[in-house]
Amino acid sequence: MTLAVRYTAARTLDTAVVDAPAPGPGEVELAPAYVGICGTDLHIFHGDMDARVAAPAVLGHEMSGRIVRVGPEVEGWQPGDAVTVMPLRWDGSCPACRAGHQHICQHLDFIGIDSPGAMQQRWRVPASTLIPLPDALPLDRAALVEPTAVAVHDVGRARVREGEKVVVVGGGPVGVLIALVAQAAGAEVRVVELSAHRRSLAQELGLVTWDPAGVDVPGLVGEWTGEAGADVAFEVSGAAGGVDTAVEVLGVRGRLCLVAIHSRPREVNLHRFFWRELTLVGARLYERSDFEKAVALVAEGTIPAERLISRVVPLTQAPTAFEALEGGGEVMKILVDCTTDIEGARA
Amino acid sequence: MTLAVRYTAARTLDTAVVDAPAPGPGEVELAPAYVGICGTDLHIFHGDMDARVAAPAVLGHEMSGRIVRVGPEVEGWQPGDAVTVMPLRWDGSCPACRAGHQHICQHLDFIGIDSPGAMQQRWRVPASTLIPLPDALPLDRAALVEPTAVAVHDVGRARVREGEKVVVVGGGPVGVLIALVAQAAGAEVRVVELSAHRRSLAQELGLVTWDPAGVDVPGLVGEWTGEAGADVAFEVSGAAGGVDTAVEVLGVRGRLCLVAIHSRPREVNLHRFFWRELTLVGARLYERSDFEKAVALVAEGTIPAERLISRVVPLTQAPTAFEALEGGGEVMKILVDCTTDIEGARA
Ligand SMILES: [Zn+2]
Ligand SMILES: [Zn+2]
Repeated sequence: MTLAVRYTAARTLDTAVVDAPAPGPGEVELAPAYVGICGTDLHIFHGDMDARVAAPAVLGHEMSGRIVRVGPEVEGWQPGDAVTVMPLRWDGSCPACRAGHQHICQHLDFIGIDSPGAMQQRWRVPASTLIPLPDALPLDRAALVEPTAVAVHDVGRARVREGEKVVVVGGGPVGVLIALVAQAAGAEVRVVELSAHRRSLAQELGLVTWDPAGVDVPGLVGEWTGEAGADVAFEVSGAAGGVDTAVEVLGVRGRLCLVAIHSRPREVNLHRFFWRELTLVGARLYERSDFEKAVALVAEGTIPAERLISRVVPLTQAPTAFEALEGGGEVMKILVDCTTDIEGARA
Repeated sequence: MTLAVRYTAARTLDTAVVDAPAPGPGEVELAPAYVGICGTDLHIFHGDMDARVAAPAVLGHEMSGRIVRVGPEVEGWQPGDAVTVMPLRWDGSCPACRAGHQHICQHLDFIGIDSPGAMQQRWRVPASTLIPLPDALPLDRAALVEPTAVAVHDVGRARVREGEKVVVVGGGPVGVLIALVAQAAGAEVRVVELSAHRRSLAQELGLVTWDPAGVDVPGLVGEWTGEAGADVAFEVSGAAGGVDTAVEVLGVRGRLCLVAIHSRPREVNLHRFFWRELTLVGARLYERSDFEKAVALVAEGTIPAERLISRVVPLTQAPTAFEALEGGGEVMKILVDCTTDIEGARA
């Protein structure tokens, strides 16, 4: 048995004791330690993803934890190993997989959306999803590896190089992580963010921020770059205006990395793409190499994970934390602590 | 003196005898032989580019010809040399030029739009714009080098590789040239074109065409690619629907090369860019290496230039030819023959 945080209907989470069958062939059973709440979890909570998510559904995919049990046919892993999970399962046979892009498999199973997630005391996953964590890395910080892997993937898709000037449009958790990873790659970064609170959080991390409502962002980029324009822009805001800003700030041959989900078509200044020979590149999720790089960045402190954690709540308080997050924007990252020992919940 | 075809006002061309001063330092005087009429020339003729074009303006930038006189400080060129012209002049000092992208200089002078073009008997250009032509290449075919260089640049920007499946949306002269250049790079190509006449012209060149009004293009691409989607799409139509088609046919990590000019913003399915990790790449004009490759493709017959030439008209008939082209779509390429010896026009 395991205590789990479940999405049951729009704006409704519960905690319930559910079955925890033994790991099958190729599987391991984990004891999740910390699980981050991310934007996708909030979308599910809001009911926006009911067409995809089969309620009741255990949420959570940004996690750290330890192996409890190892199923048959699993080699190289021991109970007690500290791990995070790359929460992807692919079919291995579709054109995307055959082309080597398994992370965007045409029949991708995203664990924590399409199948049960990590916000529970015990979690079965394929051993193929495990990523080892260094023993010295505290598990709360390690819960930041998954969003950091997103940022590593995005920065890699944009091919950010040392000395380049980068504009990140959107200063939420993903935008801030992209900014930090791009800085680690040697880029100079500016973060464009409407929310004063998010700007102050980003500034506390040493990032330079601009308020698009208060300053002329393209004008500032012009001054900053000697009228050359930025080398790279990341669109992380999800807003139509964010797309416009990201296109407008780019110089000749600039690259726009599209990170945010735009559920409706957006008007795009294609003439600018033609005129300046811009590139737009979509970035989704991550590959194993991104995860491994993310572990290193978090472990070495390049990503100051501890400063990105706004609050830690016990498993039983997760529903309340989701409701509080509805207000939005006032936190960077909330972690759910799954290690709280709740009477009767453990097998 | 030289006889020239001049744009004087919307829908009005004349032919007039104009001055032909001797070539200055670094310049050569050419005798244009053949000059193609292109879509941009028609835009100017329609009056759409009056903000940029200072009337009276001599049109024409797709040309072949011979050197007549060589100005001071010009080395390596002789009267009689067969040449074409890469009609670009850049400042050499802007951020684009400093980054090595002179062809999209922020202060680009496009010769034939921003300064006098080739539809005249004598034409002064900087020697730096000259591209040598092989003696064996007939000059009428050589007039196709410039549009072929556009196609070479586009195919290069899309990084088309051998064995890839390519969809060209728009089967006018540029689309057909892109299709032929992509085929020469080893790709399999389908051309999507609404006009039955253009489709039949493309078919005569051995290209496979689809009528988007009559067939389900994404469905056919699915069958063609085993549901993988195309590797590359070129948007050459300039229409909003063309953008949608080009995005929709692409498989995972597909590349969309944006060739057409979209003077207004277009709604783009950015979610698809995210979901499939697509890339959009803008392509404008050409670089010297594209021109040199284009000369080779035309000279060796890979581009069957003679079959793309619909009609050749004498210089004095150019205004009539522009009017006939207003109907649109019924021709591939019309050349203006500048070698007709008209009494009193020659110096
Ligand atoms: Zn697959
Ligand atoms: Zn320049």
